[in-house]
Amino acid sequence: MENYIFIAAPELHSEFKRILLKTGLAEHKAEKCAGIFTSNSIDGIYTHGVNRFPRFVSNIRDGFFKPDTEPSLTHSAGSLEQWNGNYGLGPMNALFATDRAAELADKNGIGLVGMGFTNHWMRAGYYGWHAARKGYVFIGWTNAEANMSAWGAVDPRIGNNPFVVAVPYKGEAIVLDFAMTQYSYGKMELYKSEERQLPYPGGFDTNGNITSDPGEILKTWRALPIGYWKGSGFALLLDILAAILSGGRPTAEITKDKKEKGAEFGVSQVFIAINPARLSNYPSIEGTIQQVVDYVHGSVPENNKTVIRYPGENVMNVRKKNLEAGIPVNKKVWAEIQTL
Amino acid sequence: MENYIFIAAPELHSEFKRILLKTGLAEHKAEKCAGIFTSNSIDGIYTHGVNRFPRFVSNIRDGFFKPDTEPSLTHSAGSLEQWNGNYGLGPMNALFATDRAAELADKNGIGLVGMGFTNHWMRAGYYGWHAARKGYVFIGWTNAEANMSAWGAVDPRIGNNPFVVAVPYKGEAIVLDFAMTQYSYGKMELYKSEERQLPYPGGFDTNGNITSDPGEILKTWRALPIGYWKGSGFALLLDILAAILSGGRPTAEITKDKKEKGAEFGVSQVFIAINPARLSNYPSIEGTIQQVVDYVHGSVPENNKTVIRYPGENVMNVRKKNLEAGIPVNKKVWAEIQTL
Repeated sequence: MENYIFIAAPELHSEFKRILLKTGLAEHKAEKCAGIFTSNSIDGIYTHGVNRFPRFVSNIRDGFFKPDTEPSLTHSAGSLEQWNGNYGLGPMNALFATDRAAELADKNGIGLVGMGFTNHWMRAGYYGWHAARKGYVFIGWTNAEANMSAWGAVDPRIGNNPFVVAVPYKGEAIVLDFAMTQYSYGKMELYKSEERQLPYPGGFDTNGNITSDPGEILKTWRALPIGYWKGSGFALLLDILAAILSGGRPTAEITKDKKEKGAEFGVSQVFIAINPARLSNYPSIEGTIQQVVDYVHGSVPENNKTVIRYPGENVMNVRKKNLEAGIPVNKKVWAEIQTL
Repeated sequence: MENYIFIAAPELHSEFKRILLKTGLAEHKAEKCAGIFTSNSIDGIYTHGVNRFPRFVSNIRDGFFKPDTEPSLTHSAGSLEQWNGNYGLGPMNALFATDRAAELADKNGIGLVGMGFTNHWMRAGYYGWHAARKGYVFIGWTNAEANMSAWGAVDPRIGNNPFVVAVPYKGEAIVLDFAMTQYSYGKMELYKSEERQLPYPGGFDTNGNITSDPGEILKTWRALPIGYWKGSGFALLLDILAAILSGGRPTAEITKDKKEKGAEFGVSQVFIAINPARLSNYPSIEGTIQQVVDYVHGSVPENNKTVIRYPGENVMNVRKKNLEAGIPVNKKVWAEIQTL
């Protein structure tokens, strides 16, 4: 860890906010976005927290993410609404859409918000934790620029389209947040720099064989879709749904603009919230979830070092540690942030 | 193909119906269930069509699937309803729930039906094709008895929980229907009997390593979850959602009963329909989907034998062939069916 310094969460938050105010964000947006980047860092999702912050700032400064716009309602159809993100700040728009889906769910049990022409929401899981801690079941996803090949193809034409599912659990949440590629390119670059093999096969080598060698995968740029053809198909359907439900743009258009203009912008997202308090079995839901957790926790582990966990369980350990000991920030990243 | 005979779809349908009537189903249920088993066979999903038919009949005759019950409304919360399947016929209940979700979507844009205490719906994709051909977007899933280990565990405590997503496309549909295990045990047994390796790694060997050898995986009974820990986590969340949204039973309870009573029954399912005609961009949806399909079809294939397809595209080829040439039925299976 000699390349890292430990920054206390409030200090990280202040630094993010200082820079966002300087970048032209209104007070409440600077506060909220700083909070989201800090929270993602506290939870150990550095790739969509502190490490991503400089790119977020440059995307605003370059005019791709518009700090002054607000989402506008395009269409309302009862429990389903379509909003235009007006190329605003992805985290602000996504937080708004999550809360709006929850309001629709309060009224009709379930609510769906499609938001088009928005921007990268950073970490999918943030919105799952946010909704589930308020008591809602949440399902959401985003499309993205093409960064994964369709099954059987060599060139990227599908986004990794992160998907999140969350349920309330003991005042906290069970949250699964996954992209359709097995490993992110960021993670593969990290393994390569440390001269380590991936724990499990993660892409194709130059001979078209599946490999755990991150260097080979970074040569072909063919990351493995989860479940081979299944993840490729799921990503394609998530793109179709995001574009049609939001009235926004599919990966094909986002990728074209990225190639021409140099940045990913104007993505499409879906936010579904369900209010369990509207269910007949609401009083017994906590017990049902506990039953599932206990059953899975009672599994026989493959060895005495393995702990069987539910999705999000380890996040809470990391959160506790980072709140106590400070957030580990790469010294180069911290130096860059301080110049912003 | 010397072990197969080709049966014309109408003949298969009549034979299924004859047996179901003999088993005590009312005329309209025998007709509908025979249709679903025939359709699944026409589409090439023999495991949940003709090959599964004898077990469906024995589950009815043994009293696990009740042919005379109808689903009953437990609770209504606007766009979300909970129904009790009353241990009736899975395909009848699932078809009812799919249509009911579509009715809710007509009213409020989106509708969700949770159905508890129902039975195996056979092929998930059937309900996706059914809804999407009528013009609806469809998302659905079921839980199941434990047949997959949690990530890091050796004993099965999670269901493979098949999941389906479908969108209307050119009067037909794009349908992705996938279980959370990479390969079904049925498929692995087929590969083993033919002394073939799986095309891609599909489970763990006796040393705890990932392997493509179906014989090894059938020894450990540790099928690979799609995306390793991701598919394990997704299956767990689908189980929680199915149980709480339906007010029904999680995998833990279904598995306990299976062990004690010898059959899987009383599963929980979720049916979500969205009516795209309620969207502001309805006139352009077909164009957006075509844009995604064209973009992916334009991929560079890894070799000149590979065809890049969208999910469900190949089903239409199989359907055409089976309608023309008859459905290939294993002679042993056909002989067994004729004795029913």
